[in-house]
Amino acid sequence: MIRTHDAGSLRATDAGTTVTLAGWVARRRDHGGVIFVDLRDGSGVAQVVFREEDAHALRNEFCVKVTGEVTRRPEGNDNPELPTGEIEVTAAALEVLSEAAPLPLPVDDQIEAGDDIRLRYRYLDLRRSGPANALRLRSRANQLARGVLHKRDFLEIETPTLTRSTPEGARDFLVPVRLQPGSWYALPQSPQLFKQLLMVGGMERYYQIARCYRDEDFRADRQPEFTQLDIEMSFVTEDDVIDLGEAIVSALWKDLADHEISRPIPRITWHDAMARYGSDKPDLRYGLELTELTEYLRGTAFRVFAASIDAGGYVGAVVMPGGAAQTRKELDGWQDWAKARGARGLAYVVLDAETGEARGPVAKNLSAEHLGGLADAVGAKPGDAVFFAASTDTREAQELLGAARIEIAKRAKLIDESAWAFCWVVDAPMFERTDEGGWTAVHHPFTSPNAEWVDRFEEAPDRALAYAYDIVCNGNEIGGGSIRIHRGDVQQRVFDLLGITPEEAQDKFGFLLEAFKYGAPPHGGIAFGWDRVCMLLAGADSIREVIAFPKTRGGFDPLTGAPTPITTQQRAEAGIDAKPKPPAPSPGTAGPAAPVTDPV
Amino acid sequence: MIRTHDAGSLRATDAGTTVTLAGWVARRRDHGGVIFVDLRDGSGVAQVVFREEDAHALRNEFCVKVTGEVTRRPEGNDNPELPTGEIEVTAAALEVLSEAAPLPLPVDDQIEAGDDIRLRYRYLDLRRSGPANALRLRSRANQLARGVLHKRDFLEIETPTLTRSTPEGARDFLVPVRLQPGSWYALPQSPQLFKQLLMVGGMERYYQIARCYRDEDFRADRQPEFTQLDIEMSFVTEDDVIDLGEAIVSALWKDLADHEISRPIPRITWHDAMARYGSDKPDLRYGLELTELTEYLRGTAFRVFAASIDAGGYVGAVVMPGGAAQTRKELDGWQDWAKARGARGLAYVVLDAETGEARGPVAKNLSAEHLGGLADAVGAKPGDAVFFAASTDTREAQELLGAARIEIAKRAKLIDESAWAFCWVVDAPMFERTDEGGWTAVHHPFTSPNAEWVDRFEEAPDRALAYAYDIVCNGNEIGGGSIRIHRGDVQQRVFDLLGITPEEAQDKFGFLLEAFKYGAPPHGGIAFGWDRVCMLLAGADSIREVIAFPKTRGGFDPLTGAPTPITTQQRAEAGIDAKPKPPAPSPGTAGPAAPVTDPV
Repeated sequence: MIRTHDAGSLRATDAGTTVTLAGWVARRRDHGGVIFVDLRDGSGVAQVVFREEDAHALRNEFCVKVTGEVTRRPEGNDNPELPTGEIEVTAAALEVLSEAAPLPLPVDDQIEAGDDIRLRYRYLDLRRSGPANALRLRSRANQLARGVLHKRDFLEIETPTLTRSTPEGARDFLVPVRLQPGSWYALPQSPQLFKQLLMVGGMERYYQIARCYRDEDFRADRQPEFTQLDIEMSFVTEDDVIDLGEAIVSALWKDLADHEISRPIPRITWHDAMARYGSDKPDLRYGLELTELTEYLRGTAFRVFAASIDAGGYVGAVVMPGGAAQTRKELDGWQDWAKARGARGLAYVVLDAETGEARGPVAKNLSAEHLGGLADAVGAKPGDAVFFAASTDTREAQELLGAARIEIAKRAKLIDESAWAFCWVVDAPMFERTDEGGWTAVHHPFTSPNAEWVDRFEEAPDRALAYAYDIVCNGNEIGGGSIRIHRGDVQQRVFDLLGITPEEAQDKFGFLLEAFKYGAPPHGGIAFGWDRVCMLLAGADSIREVIAFPKTRGGFDPLTGAPTPITTQQRAEAGIDAKPKPPAPSPGTAGPAAPVTDPV
Repeated sequence: MIRTHDAGSLRATDAGTTVTLAGWVARRRDHGGVIFVDLRDGSGVAQVVFREEDAHALRNEFCVKVTGEVTRRPEGNDNPELPTGEIEVTAAALEVLSEAAPLPLPVDDQIEAGDDIRLRYRYLDLRRSGPANALRLRSRANQLARGVLHKRDFLEIETPTLTRSTPEGARDFLVPVRLQPGSWYALPQSPQLFKQLLMVGGMERYYQIARCYRDEDFRADRQPEFTQLDIEMSFVTEDDVIDLGEAIVSALWKDLADHEISRPIPRITWHDAMARYGSDKPDLRYGLELTELTEYLRGTAFRVFAASIDAGGYVGAVVMPGGAAQTRKELDGWQDWAKARGARGLAYVVLDAETGEARGPVAKNLSAEHLGGLADAVGAKPGDAVFFAASTDTREAQELLGAARIEIAKRAKLIDESAWAFCWVVDAPMFERTDEGGWTAVHHPFTSPNAEWVDRFEEAPDRALAYAYDIVCNGNEIGGGSIRIHRGDVQQRVFDLLGITPEEAQDKFGFLLEAFKYGAPPHGGIAFGWDRVCMLLAGADSIREVIAFPKTRGGFDPLTGAPTPITTQQRAEAGIDAKPKPPAPSPGTAGPAAPVTDPV
């Protein structure tokens, strides 16, 4: 090593030792004849004292090597905020390892910089303690999760990333294959099919911190490549996977957030989550549960509600504590908010802070009786506001109220930002209606119906439940998985319900179905959205903060300039424009459909 | 868990316990009224005894759940070769979890199967102990390497795999970008540039078990995607990286091959390796060193040798112990062997086993004096054969002899297959001549000249040495790396020598050069070819054995059928045929050249 000591490790007990440090000039202060330099390396910072003539050329972020003696600082000069604050190093020799040009991005923890400049000069951004610590935390998170998994005899197995494309795989990234011109690989959306094949292969316990790819429009906080902690187990029930998942998050949060997760983590059924929180990933850091008012308001003359009720739909409400104090403009703002979400508006009444009297546009339309009992029905107090949603589509109305619930919590500052609230959302529905009136799988077509439904899901597909589970932290889905179907007869019945013909099944899932003919074990798994898990642990508000070299929304990398046009020669060599040969007959082997993945 | 016990864990002390096992029917033996089944799971095998009527339907590879009591086997029926050989389980209940169709590939450790059928039914192949253990070993290798690295404060950091393509990157796999039609990502050949940027970013110690991609013709044992253990460190010298590399291989070989590597691992300079073994990755499990005869034979009348010697070239020899006993046909076979390697032939003499007299085609052409001293000069004994190579190109002749050396060792059975011989090959040359008479970088243009040459490599580029090192095991290069240039002035001089103009440098390496302006630390690293490391540890003869789902030579996956043609719709959606927009001006950011990678 070029250095003998880490700068951040020096203490008063090192006084008298001659050390060689190497790092960066973090700060320089000139004091008549003497220059003080904060020398930063990966371990921290130490103060180095130079004679002015030795160090006048040093500028910020020069990379230097310094040899000198550690001395106690003169009395009164200690810096108790710095671990090395009792000492300084008196420089006897200085070597500039490399100079730094004027900085486009100051290496200063205190200065806020725009995302674009941070990403373009990510190597300067990473010299700041916040960004560097986020990557350190992520490295530690990997180590902790692996520790849990190895203790439970999991094998780390790599699965391919140059895989088979699927006809409907619009979300697949594609790769032309020079050696087979006209043929393409696809980058995997997840290792789902391969991990299931590993279970058929008797590997029993698999995990991988796997790079996955999804060619989506980059709404929200998405990256074209992302990472999941991917897990699959044989001979397990839902409880086993959930127990493992809890062991992992417990280890992570204990070590990295100093938070003891109380176990078992509460489980809530998907239907309860929708009914109580209007979300399949409820944020349980606050209450504000929804109230269904369908029965309460049955018979109302208010057409908006009556139409939904009469059509077998839903009317519900959520209370905003203190919401009656909002200005007219604020209340109007809720209408804009609802419209931005695609709703027609958000009906409300406010309860007078003193009299409790219900006022507002909806109040006029409700009967005195309905108004009079409303506060009790929804659990509101004088001074609160009550927001309503009604729809013939129960889920649509619940989701609007669920979104309002979150918005209320934010506006009313009801969120304890230091809290951690976990839950499992279980018993997800197997199927939902397609626009064409058929059925589609909510999770994916290999998800197993639960014991109650496995023999009769055809009787009421809309009510059939799956062994599917998501883990939610503070309203973020951080992982999800399911027990898979391993019996051919059950699989066939699911395909029948989904309207997938044997030919289609063969074409889409052929190689997995073929594998399932040879003694497939019962199996299930889970995948954690690793970027999101690390983001939460780091207290960051974007997954970009826990990715070393993230891309911007359009999939652009401001640092390298990727992606770029390619040359005519590259195009020709890669065989991009080659006519494909007719596909080789490949009985029993066909590609996966796009949605077969633990959805993280 | 569906089971209460692992089958392979049962012992005599478990007798009397009622257990539930789950696994596969590995073997079934009918004994009049009773059926014995070897039940296999991930832990091993246990014998289960059924009444005939309960188990007559069981066939090989059915996946079953069995409940029964563990009993001591009847006296005389113990199987000492099986850890569970003292017990059997008397089945009280059987549940077939899933049936198995007749097997296309028998799940039998004793049966050899072709690669194609093994890969197509990889999930059956993996139920055999050899393939399964290879994956288990690999998982353990990851864990051991990470253990060493974490103990030394390395951070595991993921780098992007959707990166910037380069104009000359014919070996890049390309990915069209739907959101920026006409623009493409490239899959990385290694994380080289990103790991160097992390060092500029002050991360100091990075590692990653990284997926890499190289679009090569699949000669030899290559896969289009492969894995390297990728490492980079700041403020280090070559010795530091070598020490870390030794710590990693020592931990691996000790645990997985029960072999204590004696440290320090010997270092041999690149020039010595070429001179003594005719290879930059010498197999040191046997001797058979080459002898240079250029001086010894100076003045010979034999034109083939004289021409090389007079032109400043090289003549050398390697001895085949006992080689005089070869038949004429065997000796002729060496000529075919040499021609297959592109040489004109392989000159030789044989030394009579009794008289020591030199015979053979070359003997006629050499003087009595040269013949008389030959045995002493090359260290041969009566009965040996001496093979010669001569060329005006020293390296070409040495490589021919080096290949002959390996072939001799094989044919004369001189290789101790149980031995492990490691070495570092250091002091590699910086530059070699291009066909056009210029210079090219042997490693890559960021590799640092060593201290002796850094200030004067221009004086004799052909003799200038780099801080570049490869680690070799039994003749396989298993890792390699270098100390990088971190000073702008040195980098500029290297570019000048290579004939890279500032404009070209900017275009090819712009973003790295830009980063190097801001106080780049001295740094270096290494990358291990992880597939090859695991292959050697597993005692396998192909990297395919340690890859869960490998591809065949043409990059084809017999299991999934990848790659495949894509649909017109996919083609349109992915923007494959979109006209690229003119590249956005992006000062200071341009892509890497293809060869910038630790070459594994």
